[in-house]
Amino acid sequence: MKIIKGSICTPKGFLAAGVHAGIKKKTHKKDIALIYSQKLAAAAGVTTVNLMKAAPVILTEKFLTSGYLQAIIVNSGNANACTGDKGMQDAETMAATTAATLNILPDAVAVASTGVIGVPLPIEKVIAGIKNATQHLSTHDEDAANAILTTDTFVKTCAVACEINGKTVHIGGIAKGSGMIHPMMATMLAFMTTDLAIAPAVLRSALIEANEDSFHMITVDGDTSTNDMLLVLANGMAENPEISTTTSAAYQTFTAALKFVCIELAKKIVQDGEGATKLIEMNVTGAANKAQARQAARAVCRSSLVKSAVFGEDANWGRVASALGTAGVELDPNKLTVALDHLVLLENGVPLPFDEAIASEILKEKNIIFNADLGVGTATATAWGCDLTYDYVKINASYRS
Amino acid sequence: MKIIKGSICTPKGFLAAGVHAGIKKKTHKKDIALIYSQKLAAAAGVTTVNLMKAAPVILTEKFLTSGYLQAIIVNSGNANACTGDKGMQDAETMAATTAATLNILPDAVAVASTGVIGVPLPIEKVIAGIKNATQHLSTHDEDAANAILTTDTFVKTCAVACEINGKTVHIGGIAKGSGMIHPMMATMLAFMTTDLAIAPAVLRSALIEANEDSFHMITVDGDTSTNDMLLVLANGMAENPEISTTTSAAYQTFTAALKFVCIELAKKIVQDGEGATKLIEMNVTGAANKAQARQAARAVCRSSLVKSAVFGEDANWGRVASALGTAGVELDPNKLTVALDHLVLLENGVPLPFDEAIASEILKEKNIIFNADLGVGTATATAWGCDLTYDYVKINASYRS
Repeated sequence: MKIIKGSICTPKGFLAAGVHAGIKKKTHKKDIALIYSQKLAAAAGVTTVNLMKAAPVILTEKFLTSGYLQAIIVNSGNANACTGDKGMQDAETMAATTAATLNILPDAVAVASTGVIGVPLPIEKVIAGIKNATQHLSTHDEDAANAILTTDTFVKTCAVACEINGKTVHIGGIAKGSGMIHPMMATMLAFMTTDLAIAPAVLRSALIEANEDSFHMITVDGDTSTNDMLLVLANGMAENPEISTTTSAAYQTFTAALKFVCIELAKKIVQDGEGATKLIEMNVTGAANKAQARQAARAVCRSSLVKSAVFGEDANWGRVASALGTAGVELDPNKLTVALDHLVLLENGVPLPFDEAIASEILKEKNIIFNADLGVGTATATAWGCDLTYDYVKINASYRS
Repeated sequence: MKIIKGSICTPKGFLAAGVHAGIKKKTHKKDIALIYSQKLAAAAGVTTVNLMKAAPVILTEKFLTSGYLQAIIVNSGNANACTGDKGMQDAETMAATTAATLNILPDAVAVASTGVIGVPLPIEKVIAGIKNATQHLSTHDEDAANAILTTDTFVKTCAVACEINGKTVHIGGIAKGSGMIHPMMATMLAFMTTDLAIAPAVLRSALIEANEDSFHMITVDGDTSTNDMLLVLANGMAENPEISTTTSAAYQTFTAALKFVCIELAKKIVQDGEGATKLIEMNVTGAANKAQARQAARAVCRSSLVKSAVFGEDANWGRVASALGTAGVELDPNKLTVALDHLVLLENGVPLPFDEAIASEILKEKNIIFNADLGVGTATATAWGCDLTYDYVKINASYRS
């Protein structure tokens, strides 16, 4: 597998567009993204577990049952969540308008939305925006990557190539954050494309596996969105023999590459968490099982106190120990070990004297790594988060205005 | 029941002291508190569920098994948590020193600590401070209420009197916050005294009941402390016939009064949450059962996005709906109703147009009330939290310095 430039239009047969439709107040900001595959593509998705699911999430879940999609239409600036019957009608209108303009089936168009909750979509502007976007489809993917953003400060893209059964297969993806990020079986918005030939059920298995160690392991603020959606479209244009089982070497190769792209995009989301200045990586070892390792790693990344300490570059490791202690997982207080990067601070439950100057140097970095061993088993997991800053509060105290 | 002035020394036979021992850096700040009952008292406690329990918590749990205590010794400025064997020895030294100076049994002295985690106690200073505190015991309770504080900005006290079986019974309490507050079956530090005569097992039942609707229902930052401890001492000096069953009218009267004191103290903790400018009250109705009602109410108070919106006085009610949707409880998206105080914003899943000017007026208040009906049952609960502000980040970015 090698990392290459590009994103969703790197795999063969995918086109994209991003335009400004006037949903966002600022006139120059793009707010409609369109992703289109020249061939009907096997599709899989993971969506939010929030019970207050947005209308586009409910509609897309319905369309995903067929296992095939050909386009994804996305608006930013309005989540179309908690919007009642009108919300569902608007989501259906988005799919229908896209399908009619592209001359494809309406139920082959996934719909995604992100932005403020509880405000009806300005549907006339959205319709005009969709029609405009279809006129701008190209292999230039930066506009679509831009058009899905809200409070994000940079576009999140990734692409890789790998050899599968003698064919070069490409995977590309785009994602957005950057608040209300605490994915549970899903994420905010992330769209992946590949020219791989793969059966829908197998694609779904690969996506779930990749998601578990990537989007599922990040948190910005502990709030799980109403609109989380992770989609992958595989159009088969790499011309490899279709992958039809999860036991093949080809499946393993593809899933590893897909997971790599997912982790890269997931880390970019937390790097660009609302107000964030630092990325936190929490490595847990010695857990009783995989689920507990994940839970422990996520609990530390979620702790407001750990996040604030990292922002303040304060080696307050006791907060990491405390967060692990309430993570709801098994641990041995007399075996717990906590380290800031290579600097061991607590070993087998006993605090070690440490050089504040060395800790201070480590905490000046942009990427802060904590390592903890729970002392009860052999399972491991890594989670990623970001610091809690004045700017997080500022951004979220005035989101609507 | 009537509310009266005072706190822990209002019930008959209780004395208290608060002195500066030099654990806190600032020379004028009190950091040792002592509470003493002239008679051995029935005692009950609830302590943290954090697996990284502090040494004083472990020791006090052991002493509580007898059902009787006569004193509580507390230090602030150092949590004596994650401090290994030395931490346990230090906690035992605190109990032994207090007992020897007061000439009571060592296992009748509860020990509590609060402050930074993972730093050994300056035990010589603590010993000197305890001896000094015993010289200053009096019915003046303000010093003890002060000495248990850390980042708190005001003392938290409450006292009530009620008639039980022809006798006037008093209940007094003090508490402290104000960060790492997300009590699970416990709270930070809260100490209650009463001159009621009551059997230890019955006192424990009353405390658990009172705690469930008070300390258990508050959150400042979603982080559960290593040191949470709620204790009540009942010395019988009101001379009522001892309450020996949970089915008596006397038990009901006492528990209601105890719950009132607990709720008052709990609300003061969130009012004084680190950096807080506003108290948030979340009332949930229509839940499937009591446990789910509690969980839903707490989830909203924990949401960083809801907290930031309240700080910014932004009527971003969609975040309340979203937090309810991921609270892990049953709700009906088509019946969910959300109101800001009396202003209904979402009714049966449909957003209502609302007057921003009215919302803005409500949000200028110090106490912000949200009401939500989940539409699936009849259970209710109330939780309390506070807003997320620049000052929370500031306080916690530099706690150790």
